[in-house]
Amino acid sequence: MKDTYPEAGWENGVLRVHIRDPFWDPLREIIRVNAIPYQWQALNDAVPGAEPSGCLRNFRIASGAESGEHCGYVFQDSDAAKWLEGVAYSLMFHPDPDLEAKADEAVNTILSAQQPDGYLNTYYTIQAPEKRFTNLRDNHELYCLGHLIEAAVAYHRATGKTALLEAAERYADLVDTVFGPEPEKKHGYPGHPEAELALVKLYAHTGKEKYLRLARYFVDARGTQPLYFPEEERRNGNGRYFFADGPLGYAYCQADVPVREQQEAEGHAVRAMYLYSAMADLARITGDAGLRAACRRLWGSTAEKRMYITGGIGSSSYGEAFTFDYDLPNDTVYAETCAAIGLVFFARRMLLLDPAGEYGDVMERALYNCVLSGMQLDGQRFFYVNPLEVLPEACRRDNAKRHVEFRRQAWFGCACCPPNLVRLLMSLGDYAYSVSGSRAYVHLYLSGEAELRLLGGVLRLECSTAYPWSGSIRYTLHTEAPMQAELALRLPAWSPEYVLFLNGKRAAPRPERGYLLLDRTWTEGDVLELRLDLRPRLYTASPRVPEDAGKAAVLCGPLVYCAEEADNGSELHRLSLDPGTEPVWDDSPDVPGNGKAVIASGWRDRDWPEGVAGLYRPWRGRDRERVRIRLIPYYAWANRSPGEMRVWLRLG
Amino acid sequence: MKDTYPEAGWENGVLRVHIRDPFWDPLREIIRVNAIPYQWQALNDAVPGAEPSGCLRNFRIASGAESGEHCGYVFQDSDAAKWLEGVAYSLMFHPDPDLEAKADEAVNTILSAQQPDGYLNTYYTIQAPEKRFTNLRDNHELYCLGHLIEAAVAYHRATGKTALLEAAERYADLVDTVFGPEPEKKHGYPGHPEAELALVKLYAHTGKEKYLRLARYFVDARGTQPLYFPEEERRNGNGRYFFADGPLGYAYCQADVPVREQQEAEGHAVRAMYLYSAMADLARITGDAGLRAACRRLWGSTAEKRMYITGGIGSSSYGEAFTFDYDLPNDTVYAETCAAIGLVFFARRMLLLDPAGEYGDVMERALYNCVLSGMQLDGQRFFYVNPLEVLPEACRRDNAKRHVEFRRQAWFGCACCPPNLVRLLMSLGDYAYSVSGSRAYVHLYLSGEAELRLLGGVLRLECSTAYPWSGSIRYTLHTEAPMQAELALRLPAWSPEYVLFLNGKRAAPRPERGYLLLDRTWTEGDVLELRLDLRPRLYTASPRVPEDAGKAAVLCGPLVYCAEEADNGSELHRLSLDPGTEPVWDDSPDVPGNGKAVIASGWRDRDWPEGVAGLYRPWRGRDRERVRIRLIPYYAWANRSPGEMRVWLRLG
Repeated sequence: MKDTYPEAGWENGVLRVHIRDPFWDPLREIIRVNAIPYQWQALNDAVPGAEPSGCLRNFRIASGAESGEHCGYVFQDSDAAKWLEGVAYSLMFHPDPDLEAKADEAVNTILSAQQPDGYLNTYYTIQAPEKRFTNLRDNHELYCLGHLIEAAVAYHRATGKTALLEAAERYADLVDTVFGPEPEKKHGYPGHPEAELALVKLYAHTGKEKYLRLARYFVDARGTQPLYFPEEERRNGNGRYFFADGPLGYAYCQADVPVREQQEAEGHAVRAMYLYSAMADLARITGDAGLRAACRRLWGSTAEKRMYITGGIGSSSYGEAFTFDYDLPNDTVYAETCAAIGLVFFARRMLLLDPAGEYGDVMERALYNCVLSGMQLDGQRFFYVNPLEVLPEACRRDNAKRHVEFRRQAWFGCACCPPNLVRLLMSLGDYAYSVSGSRAYVHLYLSGEAELRLLGGVLRLECSTAYPWSGSIRYTLHTEAPMQAELALRLPAWSPEYVLFLNGKRAAPRPERGYLLLDRTWTEGDVLELRLDLRPRLYTASPRVPEDAGKAAVLCGPLVYCAEEADNGSELHRLSLDPGTEPVWDDSPDVPGNGKAVIASGWRDRDWPEGVAGLYRPWRGRDRERVRIRLIPYYAWANRSPGEMRVWLRLG
Repeated sequence: MKDTYPEAGWENGVLRVHIRDPFWDPLREIIRVNAIPYQWQALNDAVPGAEPSGCLRNFRIASGAESGEHCGYVFQDSDAAKWLEGVAYSLMFHPDPDLEAKADEAVNTILSAQQPDGYLNTYYTIQAPEKRFTNLRDNHELYCLGHLIEAAVAYHRATGKTALLEAAERYADLVDTVFGPEPEKKHGYPGHPEAELALVKLYAHTGKEKYLRLARYFVDARGTQPLYFPEEERRNGNGRYFFADGPLGYAYCQADVPVREQQEAEGHAVRAMYLYSAMADLARITGDAGLRAACRRLWGSTAEKRMYITGGIGSSSYGEAFTFDYDLPNDTVYAETCAAIGLVFFARRMLLLDPAGEYGDVMERALYNCVLSGMQLDGQRFFYVNPLEVLPEACRRDNAKRHVEFRRQAWFGCACCPPNLVRLLMSLGDYAYSVSGSRAYVHLYLSGEAELRLLGGVLRLECSTAYPWSGSIRYTLHTEAPMQAELALRLPAWSPEYVLFLNGKRAAPRPERGYLLLDRTWTEGDVLELRLDLRPRLYTASPRVPEDAGKAAVLCGPLVYCAEEADNGSELHRLSLDPGTEPVWDDSPDVPGNGKAVIASGWRDRDWPEGVAGLYRPWRGRDRERVRIRLIPYYAWANRSPGEMRVWLRLG
């Protein structure tokens, strides 16, 4: 089965990706061994001491096999789907009959709850079957459809089994009879986008255009006048909209104006990313110029004005939302793990729509920093919010920072981030390559193999690298016969300097839009080595960002670094970096995850002398001592004793 | 009448204070002419376009003269009391028969609602007479008693009329029968402290010790086990305590542990200040050493670890409360005007308990900065929250800053701050002097006259100064006969350098605990001139304050300065101060309130060059231009076109 439905098969030309990477393998193995089994227990209400999820039980109640009330959130069904999707990717690179048997059991449980007309949502089936599709604004009914579809496609790719895919199609077919532009249909769309990108995926997987049409309808109808959600509220007495009075309004769910007219990344950051991902898919597939322009504009708004250096997005806990340009507070930040994952989804689709290095750079930035920070290195605990500056006392005692945790938490009541992380990391191969005609793009540098079908034939790339700890990335090319092809290697913006060797000799690739292009006839055993410069460097933010004025962060290649209390003592705000000294690698151990630490030269403000009381006094010159500031990769923070953390340190 | 009950008569020895001050007179006149009449209209529901207050109508309904429901907050009665108190102080220095007639009308309306047993609270009388004193935690019943007493004492001092004082005493007498240590009485205390300090005031005014005993009971019972409020909640089904689950708990209202055991300034900042004020009064009057130590400790916690440089207190909007040591965010700040006023109350009482310059310094800091910032210079609009850093866009779009306004607002629904400001500024003379034996203390420098009764006789000080715009303060002393007395002039910590002239010759006073002492025999016409150094200076915060690390503020004497967009353009975060250049006075006009501006030398970060896209890039050295940074007094901010404001600017 694995050859037919390879790990990276969702786009044309990428036949198979197999990761065997010293950086990613341990993390993926931890997920496989710990997180997936843990989540299985959670779905089955078998985690000792935890609130029952009720997820699989809900399906049994909806099927009539058990009795009781629906348990958990209205989107509880999606937990099972996300788990199945993660399992599917895991089975692709690590067959596991026991796990597959559990997954089959989950599939059967889900199927048992499907209604004769194809409807499949346990909340409404149990609680209010007559109210189906009457509160799209709040109740995630179509969001659950989306996750069901994504799970079904992945499970089909992984196992070839069709039952879940058929069920998902039947539900999608029902939804298609309910929603659409025809006068007799409802003119609504999902409150939380997700069905849109899933329907495109279902179209790509099955070739059935009706799913593409439905996705397009949902995207096109969104935000058009008269607005659907206020009408729906009036019609069904859905209760007052939570965000009606605040600064967000219907921009919270990107449903205030039509998508082609949306100028800025607004509202709930996860919803925004899921919507923009579907828009980018549709722009590519349909060639819609308006949609393409909107994607480009919303990308720019996100990545050039509203993104943390970690790839985190969503500056405010209120609505888990974007705020305004250059508003990037490091301490009251939201930067939800799911939102950074959504940014990876969006970037990936922009790479397919219009390949350019900037999308790959942002995808990599989000992946290696904000996304990865979401998981403890043992795979047992997770962050929902990913701050860039943490004072534990403030998390405990300042209400404006109470949403910020300084320790990762066990699986959440609203368990969106952990399984999202699981499904992304387990399908990482899907993000590394793409193919266009005779050109093969490499977006991410991962050890392992990729098999790509180009115009001229099949090319197999074998990659070996210690990236991101080393800038040396070595490819061995395999081809049955000499073959013309253009290889496009992403040249990250953080490494304007590079060297490329072809079979041991300096090569002169053509740089274009963030890629190094090498067009030639390849023969079996050709060796290509790219050397990037990932020495530690000080970075500054645009002078438009108030929060980071006068500050710098240390980056090494794609990795953002941070100072932790464990290495530097408390009161990290007293540290400042010496702009005249380059930071250097530090070979001493005690780096969580066995990464590399960095030593930067700087100062620490001294205490006021004994006898100077109070809080304020006239300036009497700097009083500080020289210190070595030790920094570790941001993704690895909060893996030792709890304490303070800062990404941005004062400069000078 | 004015001779019998002079403006500053509430403490022994200060017979009369008459302010004729070029800084304060215009502000007090604006209050007299604008704010007091405006509030009269508000109390009578006669402000066009505003929600009706219902305040005086509530009293008429409670009296049976009108029918209807109680309108407004449970503490609506206190609005009438605060207005009357402000009017009383105004009448002391500016007799006004029309205003006094309105005040008498208000008094009569209030009296009409008093019940036969002395009870006087319109909310309970109208809505639930059987539920009196059953929800002290939430319902401000005793808080209203406190304001009634303060109004009654002031009105008696101002007019000699006794009706309101008698009514307040009757209500206090009733409360005395309900609460106390005796087994048959209730063992509760006010949820919002205020009655305590008012009862001490009533004792001082009438000499009746029962009021002192009741105040002491309320203070002593507070926070003792078993806690009263949870018991009350259980007994009366009062509904779950709003702060039960958060970081505050009963510390919100300083009722978690007995007051003598309280270690840090905690909870709602206004409540804390009102409680500590009563504690300081009681410590002084009763000589209670435990209470005195608690006052000293809580003062230190407030002023040395939890106070903004403006004298603002309360770092968090959640609970309008203190958070933790050195947590002084400038943008998500609360710093309620009423809390700074409460700090003035507390400081004033610490000055009486144990005279030391630090209390006067903080009192002055709060008064000239956070308190005064609370009012627009035309007396028409008010701040509740007094931020030290404002980005208008953030107030509109970041939920963590939505409580921060960048324009003062018309009278509030919860109208606590404006009338509090009125009563403080109209009784400012009460804060300037105190007398201890043959020593006369001068705490505030105000032009005008003060008549002080010392051990050796009556001394009259005539003060002439352009303070705070000039550091020269000139006193002419008047005495009927040569008289031995010690004059104690506060030497502010911001002016370690000073010169003192006695009759034109350098004098050598004895410095002691923040005062300059001059002990001699004074004769009619002696002239004393103190010259303080209030040149502009850079100040820094303790290295323990994260928010202010690497930053400086400009102060001139007691005045904190700030940069506004109106003078410096937008994006104030791009400015940094040159630590090597002293700021200087600026004589150009356009300073709201006709104060003095300051020019500081500094830089402005340049935009990134065209073509550098995105948010982050490697550090390439400073790119900034020299600029003159114009600063105006903090209290005068937001009196021109709305825009950004910053007190703390980056240094270097």
